[in-house]
Amino acid sequence: MPRISKSASSIPASAIRMLTPFADKAKEDGVKIYHLNIGAPDIKSPECAVRALKEFSFDHLPYSNSAGTLELRKALTDKYYHKAGIKIGLDDVLVTTAGSESLTFIFHAAFDPGDEVLAMEPYYCNYNTLAKMNGVKVVAVHTDIRSGFALPEAEEIEKHITPRTKGIIICNPSNPTGMIYSKEEMLAIADICRRHDLFFISDEAYREFCYTEEPYFSVMQIPGLEENAILVDSASKRYNLCGARIGCVVSRNKALMELITKFAQARLCPPVLGQTVALGAIDAEDAYFAAVKEEYIARRNYTVKALNAIPGVFSPQPDGAFYTVAELPVEDATAFCKWLLTDFRLDGETVMITPAEAFYSTPGEGRNQVRIAYVLEVPELKKAMHILEKALETYKNL
Amino acid sequence: MPRISKSASSIPASAIRMLTPFADKAKEDGVKIYHLNIGAPDIKSPECAVRALKEFSFDHLPYSNSAGTLELRKALTDKYYHKAGIKIGLDDVLVTTAGSESLTFIFHAAFDPGDEVLAMEPYYCNYNTLAKMNGVKVVAVHTDIRSGFALPEAEEIEKHITPRTKGIIICNPSNPTGMIYSKEEMLAIADICRRHDLFFISDEAYREFCYTEEPYFSVMQIPGLEENAILVDSASKRYNLCGARIGCVVSRNKALMELITKFAQARLCPPVLGQTVALGAIDAEDAYFAAVKEEYIARRNYTVKALNAIPGVFSPQPDGAFYTVAELPVEDATAFCKWLLTDFRLDGETVMITPAEAFYSTPGEGRNQVRIAYVLEVPELKKAMHILEKALETYKNL
Repeated sequence: MPRISKSASSIPASAIRMLTPFADKAKEDGVKIYHLNIGAPDIKSPECAVRALKEFSFDHLPYSNSAGTLELRKALTDKYYHKAGIKIGLDDVLVTTAGSESLTFIFHAAFDPGDEVLAMEPYYCNYNTLAKMNGVKVVAVHTDIRSGFALPEAEEIEKHITPRTKGIIICNPSNPTGMIYSKEEMLAIADICRRHDLFFISDEAYREFCYTEEPYFSVMQIPGLEENAILVDSASKRYNLCGARIGCVVSRNKALMELITKFAQARLCPPVLGQTVALGAIDAEDAYFAAVKEEYIARRNYTVKALNAIPGVFSPQPDGAFYTVAELPVEDATAFCKWLLTDFRLDGETVMITPAEAFYSTPGEGRNQVRIAYVLEVPELKKAMHILEKALETYKNL
Repeated sequence: MPRISKSASSIPASAIRMLTPFADKAKEDGVKIYHLNIGAPDIKSPECAVRALKEFSFDHLPYSNSAGTLELRKALTDKYYHKAGIKIGLDDVLVTTAGSESLTFIFHAAFDPGDEVLAMEPYYCNYNTLAKMNGVKVVAVHTDIRSGFALPEAEEIEKHITPRTKGIIICNPSNPTGMIYSKEEMLAIADICRRHDLFFISDEAYREFCYTEEPYFSVMQIPGLEENAILVDSASKRYNLCGARIGCVVSRNKALMELITKFAQARLCPPVLGQTVALGAIDAEDAYFAAVKEEYIARRNYTVKALNAIPGVFSPQPDGAFYTVAELPVEDATAFCKWLLTDFRLDGETVMITPAEAFYSTPGEGRNQVRIAYVLEVPELKKAMHILEKALETYKNL
């Protein structure tokens, strides 16, 4: 019998999706589950995106250009990024099969096997698998829940730099913590990247989900960082088009974009129907984002307050995205999250949340933490938080 | 300045798409180009696929399951593969972002960096890049145009096996040659795989494009090969849905499929709109495929006859897909293909074809060969062949 890959066998199952079989089983048994486990919100896509698909018809569906359709790339550069204060040319943007593929291309084009990328821990756990696909190691720089996951001092970050370090990756606003990197923090990371010749990879999938008054500051707005800056972007969260699988990679580094183009050609093209919908979505008006923001602020405010009101629970205040990482009064949050699905029911209902341990790579860190995605309406969140509180009471006495 | 990947820098630009800038330039100058360069046919998709999209509406577009929607996986196993004589379970099929992603998953889950995969040369050139993304090397087993690219003897194939060989990959029917592997040839390869514990990876993207009376014989129909057999499949060519980006990987090897599932989870899910259309397409009736076949047989017959009628040109008779590899009376087909776009015009028209050299990895092989995709209607093919003949005449006298 042929043996499967040795090097890949250490890849963990997705922390975000590993509990799904237990949830499926509970649903089969008639249990209602409040899903706070995955960043799949219930918010509507902009009308213009819906209309774009309605108006699309085909008799056959050919490939697009490997870099994406010209229309979509033009709309991104001339409309979306222009409005966001990011000046880029057509050759600086390449459309991908969502942010995941952007990351895959970057880990293959900017890194060699054995290279390292720094990430502020806790970080989006799929970075591990996507990096490992090119033998790249994610090296964690620890940040602390009690300080709201604030960026460590430059000296602390630089301690982790080795001759194999090729880049720093952040998610801004952060999945899983919801923290936003301020302009000053972005410039501090840029300084490190400049001094050590590192790529600064900024995953800005949640860029429209910022709940402070500060204007959003993108990696592409940092002066003098043209060769280092790489932006990972996605239509998934911005327009609630997760299933469309459309994102892009943006960089002014010509050699990098040329190499990424070769990978893009080898996979032929990004999904054409998704590109159609994403193109339509770019016409979304400010009012769309304003309404979404208002809704999420209400959800965030409710969730964080409710969490901190539960005895033994602590959540910092996240300023962006739709996640928060909270500490629970349990030893092993993974076991607790599983128990919620397999054993606990309150009037035939339970709640699904994600253990935070997989967002850490320092052993033992985050064991008592969970990621909560506040992707339900407030009345539903109320029920979910009530269930969580009762569950923690019961669990304590087991 | 940070340096880009050293190991990836050797990746060639796509042979199939590298001439596109010259074609774009010619089009800008008002030149009409007959595209015989890319496997993007003009055949209509089945009505049921078109209807599936028309009937689909959404207000937001969530992720699907990482393995694809249950509906699509069920339709594949219970309808499509069942009808094709392939008995597989639901867990044996995972929906991908087209055949390209199936290959990426396989090269990562079945191979380790430094491992080798055997391919019959000339082979689909993107295997090189997709394999290299995990440091896997494609080792060529040469086949000869004069024998119609027939499968070499087992002894010849086995000469290329080293301790690092982990699999054999074929494309059946073949892109670029159009040759079909008979049942006997499939069993011969299976024997080698069994004896040497190799994976047998069969890329069957063109399985519906067979122009002989023989029933198609899939890698999944080989008895006793459950652990070795991996099927790469795609809706792209079968239903002319190239832009939908939907394919699948099929295997009864549980450990392999579990590992592939981890990679699939890390990229979240395949495109949802594409899945909708692909699901609709599965209801395509026999009459659809029969009409497509009839059309391609006419195109193939015309093209091969016309090619062999041009002085100095030789093309074997391909039995499947919609390609043929032909020898031209030129020394360097790459230079000739480029010249067709940059210099040659016949009444303001020219033809675009693909140099075959990149489908070979043995240095010097295939230099005077091209791949021709007969993806136009016969009257158009006639004009294209006439242009090619005149171009070769002119080129000879340069």
